[in-house]
Amino acid sequence: MNEAAMTLEGWYALHDFRTINWSAWKAADDEVRAFALDELNGFLEEWAAVDEAKQGSTAVYTIVGQKADFVFMHLRETLEELNAIENAFNKTTFAQFTTKAYSYVSIVELSNYLAGSSNEDPMQNPHVVARLKPSLPKAKHICFYPMNKKRDLSDNWYMLSMEERRSMMQSHGLIGRGYAGKVKQIITGSVGFDDWEWGVTLFADDALQFKKLVYEMRFDEVSARFGEFGPFYVGNLLDQASFTELMKV
Amino acid sequence: MNEAAMTLEGWYALHDFRTINWSAWKAADDEVRAFALDELNGFLEEWAAVDEAKQGSTAVYTIVGQKADFVFMHLRETLEELNAIENAFNKTTFAQFTTKAYSYVSIVELSNYLAGSSNEDPMQNPHVVARLKPSLPKAKHICFYPMNKKRDLSDNWYMLSMEERRSMMQSHGLIGRGYAGKVKQIITGSVGFDDWEWGVTLFADDALQFKKLVYEMRFDEVSARFGEFGPFYVGNLLDQASFTELMKV
Amino acid sequence: MNEAAMTLEGWYALHDFRTINWSAWKAADDEVRAFALDELNGFLEEWAAVDEAKQGSTAVYTIVGQKADFVFMHLRETLEELNAIENAFNKTTFAQFTTKAYSYVSIVELSNYLAGSSNEDPMQNPHVVARLKPSLPKAKHICFYPMNKKRDLSDNWYMLSMEERRSMMQSHGLIGRGYAGKVKQIITGSVGFDDWEWGVTLFADDALQFKKLVYEMRFDEVSARFGEFGPFYVGNLLDQASFTELMKV
Amino acid sequence: MNEAAMTLEGWYALHDFRTINWSAWKAADDEVRAFALDELNGFLEEWAAVDEAKQGSTAVYTIVGQKADFVFMHLRETLEELNAIENAFNKTTFAQFTTKAYSYVSIVELSNYLAGSSNEDPMQNPHVVARLKPSLPKAKHICFYPMNKKRDLSDNWYMLSMEERRSMMQSHGLIGRGYAGKVKQIITGSVGFDDWEWGVTLFADDALQFKKLVYEMRFDEVSARFGEFGPFYVGNLLDQASFTELMKV
Amino acid sequence: MNEAAMTLEGWYALHDFRTINWSAWKAADDEVRAFALDELNGFLEEWAAVDEAKQGSTAVYTIVGQKADFVFMHLRETLEELNAIENAFNKTTFAQFTTKAYSYVSIVELSNYLAGSSNEDPMQNPHVVARLKPSLPKAKHICFYPMNKKRDLSDNWYMLSMEERRSMMQSHGLIGRGYAGKVKQIITGSVGFDDWEWGVTLFADDALQFKKLVYEMRFDEVSARFGEFGPFYVGNLLDQASFTELMKV
Repeated sequence: MNEAAMTLEGWYALHDFRTINWSAWKAADDEVRAFALDELNGFLEEWAAVDEAKQGSTAVYTIVGQKADFVFMHLRETLEELNAIENAFNKTTFAQFTTKAYSYVSIVELSNYLAGSSNEDPMQNPHVVARLKPSLPKAKHICFYPMNKKRDLSDNWYMLSMEERRSMMQSHGLIGRGYAGKVKQIITGSVGFDDWEWGVTLFADDALQFKKLVYEMRFDEVSARFGEFGPFYVGNLLDQASFTELMKV
Repeated sequence: MNEAAMTLEGWYALHDFRTINWSAWKAADDEVRAFALDELNGFLEEWAAVDEAKQGSTAVYTIVGQKADFVFMHLRETLEELNAIENAFNKTTFAQFTTKAYSYVSIVELSNYLAGSSNEDPMQNPHVVARLKPSLPKAKHICFYPMNKKRDLSDNWYMLSMEERRSMMQSHGLIGRGYAGKVKQIITGSVGFDDWEWGVTLFADDALQFKKLVYEMRFDEVSARFGEFGPFYVGNLLDQASFTELMKV
Repeated sequence: MNEAAMTLEGWYALHDFRTINWSAWKAADDEVRAFALDELNGFLEEWAAVDEAKQGSTAVYTIVGQKADFVFMHLRETLEELNAIENAFNKTTFAQFTTKAYSYVSIVELSNYLAGSSNEDPMQNPHVVARLKPSLPKAKHICFYPMNKKRDLSDNWYMLSMEERRSMMQSHGLIGRGYAGKVKQIITGSVGFDDWEWGVTLFADDALQFKKLVYEMRFDEVSARFGEFGPFYVGNLLDQASFTELMKV
Repeated sequence: MNEAAMTLEGWYALHDFRTINWSAWKAADDEVRAFALDELNGFLEEWAAVDEAKQGSTAVYTIVGQKADFVFMHLRETLEELNAIENAFNKTTFAQFTTKAYSYVSIVELSNYLAGSSNEDPMQNPHVVARLKPSLPKAKHICFYPMNKKRDLSDNWYMLSMEERRSMMQSHGLIGRGYAGKVKQIITGSVGFDDWEWGVTLFADDALQFKKLVYEMRFDEVSARFGEFGPFYVGNLLDQASFTELMKV
Repeated sequence: MNEAAMTLEGWYALHDFRTINWSAWKAADDEVRAFALDELNGFLEEWAAVDEAKQGSTAVYTIVGQKADFVFMHLRETLEELNAIENAFNKTTFAQFTTKAYSYVSIVELSNYLAGSSNEDPMQNPHVVARLKPSLPKAKHICFYPMNKKRDLSDNWYMLSMEERRSMMQSHGLIGRGYAGKVKQIITGSVGFDDWEWGVTLFADDALQFKKLVYEMRFDEVSARFGEFGPFYVGNLLDQASFTELMKV
């Protein structure tokens, strides 16, 4: 029996990608649109208050291309809270002008491949807690993709020894550190929760850094031999004003 | 010719995942909604009575994310009963406000890789029968995924000897036993019934245990080399009160 | 150049899986529903007469789960007849209350891996003809799945010698014979007609025998190394009375 | 750098598969249906005239099963002409009663694996031109499927030497020649035009010959090791009279 | 750790494939259609002005076959501009007569496998800048496909040394150069932006050159062993006049 890496978990995450039904939105009465935008803004304010109170965090971005028009990325303490948020949103008038595009259920995770051998409880370490229950940044751009570690004949991550995996993850981490200050990365684990093993959410003010980072990592053995990647989504920051602007017809 | 493991089978299972059409639900008259909820509650009560009478069991959970809004997991003695349940539900007014999201047909199964060599008829053993015809727990969370054993060149489960398979399944079982009291697992076989070979349904009060269990197992050779996994669904317990609350608009 | 197994072909087959649009059916007038059921019953009687006259055969079953609500499996002498049946059905009022779910085009086939070296014309053998132009049984359950023989590097069925293939098929056939009286199996070839190479249709009074048979065969080298399986459909027998009962709202 | 086989190209091809919306067709007024059929017949006559004038060719067939109801296979001198045909058809009233099912863009091709070393310009050879710009036959049945040559580790067609490819293609061609008079085959190349590398269109008066030909070829190394096959479509000849008959409700 | 090739990036790209809803277009009032075409022409003029001002470039082509009816390929300085263009278009009346078919987000890229060792800043080189921020040609035909470099066991591009990759890319480049004057090629990188690693957009006055080029390259080791290709789209140039002609009903 092989040894799994220990992981630390923080807030649950729901990425909720939506497409706007522009035909219906344009056909709606001004009052209906105004009411729907009020609802949307009410949610944006409520979510901002949760962020402020450090009881969760929500990021709101457009998505470029036809895959979706925008994404809500919610972090909350429990699956029940995430479910309550999506159900509350689904019941709004605004939601009736959107269709579902993609979603992802996961939990913020730190894997301790890099952990020292200290005996301290990591959840008492405020740096660790800050990474497990983060306030999502207001960077100009978001990038999201789910991924697996491959299990294909001789390229089987889960058949490697702990030592081999640790060594590769360290090299991998070094690349990430080269982007410190340029790209903020949130890893969420989804084994048992959704169709891939991890979600990767990146934030940057310069979207080109997403490409540079992911491309550089692809040559690293841990990605080159063992990375399997799902769909990629990229988009631009939305706030209350720009969301209202987006919906103007 | 290779030797198949013997299996014991109990109740047939139908997992019926549905999505709520909120636009239609909100547009409906109050009376229609009240009537539809009465129907739904009638079914929930009927299913509870079947459970009480030990003639089957039904679990009802929300699903987090866009894949579905809720799931009915039905266990019954025959395929005819499962078909009758889905047809009866499909004819309700409530069902007209839902769309089909995913379903899975299988049968509760115990594989006897771990069986002793005794001559007793296992179906006379009440512990075995209780596992084959279980009353589904009311845990706070559910996790469902279908899976195959891989048949890919040198990673071909079905070309292994009985002895090799037995040995790996024993190691696998040890991990599961480490989660006793935290995660309840129901294995259903679907060879000949649906697109994957097995369905796995997990129940836990702490959803994080789903991730811990499935992740730990992934390093075990039987999963690492031979597990192929389908879509994962995770959700929260629904009872009559919380289902009514969910439908409130 | 490798030697292909000779095959004998009988009736063409069309499996036509359909889903009922319950919302539209419930919304229809009683007269429309009655008219539609009359049409349906007219077809069922016509198909029964064809069966009686031994000019073809048709089986009608529900399908359990969301993949479809029912299937018509038609056997006829020509592709033109099958096409005429589907077009005639598509033009009915009843068909307007259904949507297409899946279909499969193939032809009843016997492969002569097991053939003796006799010089007789097999089409003069009434046992052979009865298998190539069978009257479909009225068993309680149906199971259908399409399949390929794998062509993947060292697991390439079509690169094996005739002798190797014959030997594996004989072992395979032995398993099937162990289910004589429990499962009736109709093999239809679809190379050149549909997306998989064969369709397998099983009939049994005890649905569990489908699982036992397919699972046992999976350990046989011909399935373990060379079988690739498509979607599985399972269901229950429908006759005129039970189909009318099914449609009652 | 490996040597590509030279190819000769003739007319561009568009396979346009359509499904009939029977509900809408039945609900339409008699006048609308009559007008739509007049349009359809106008196109059929126009396409027949193009065929007559040897400026292109069009075949019209039903498709058996749910994948589509009929296919137009158009051969024309340019992509612009093919695009004009589909746009003109899309604008008809008849087209409003159909939905798109599948299409394929390619160009009639002869590969010269079998070419002699003569210096003559093959486009001056009337036999070659007749194969590159063929008048499509009025056989009773059509079969269409797209395909690739595999590039999978040691089974990589494009890494073989010209000599190896030539030798295998010759053996392959011999099988085809065994069906002379029974099956007419049109190969169209689609590298750079559509999702597979080739389209294969077969015509025969006995549909069973499609199965016999494709099955026999599958044991040939070029198919067994290197063939990857897409969806298969099979159907029956339509002319003006039988198309009108098909549309009668 | 393996060495990534350095890349230079220019304008962001959005390929926006759309299908025309002919039923709705034909059913619309003349005034609505006229208004919608005015909007469309307004956009086409605006995009031409951006091209003129060298602040971006837009190509407009039909697509042959059912995958889409037309494509807008936009190059702009930022993701925000591309997002603004698609949102503005989505809000038009014309867009309500189209449905989304496919899209691709990427960025014009030059990889410097072929770079010399000079110390000059390539962005000061006007030839380099012209390739990174190109004015899209008005060739008669377009071809688009996305692609990956394979990572499959022994065929893993990202595990090759820089020297091996450079050598293969040079051979690959030689083929491309053989089509100079016949095919113009724009490579866009999409690692981190969309589901494949690169987009390839080809322009030619003779569409057959797409096939010749892509087919010849397929025998080159870099494609034969390492190329994975997505869907292919091919089409014909549209300008304001021909787009108006296309929409005439």
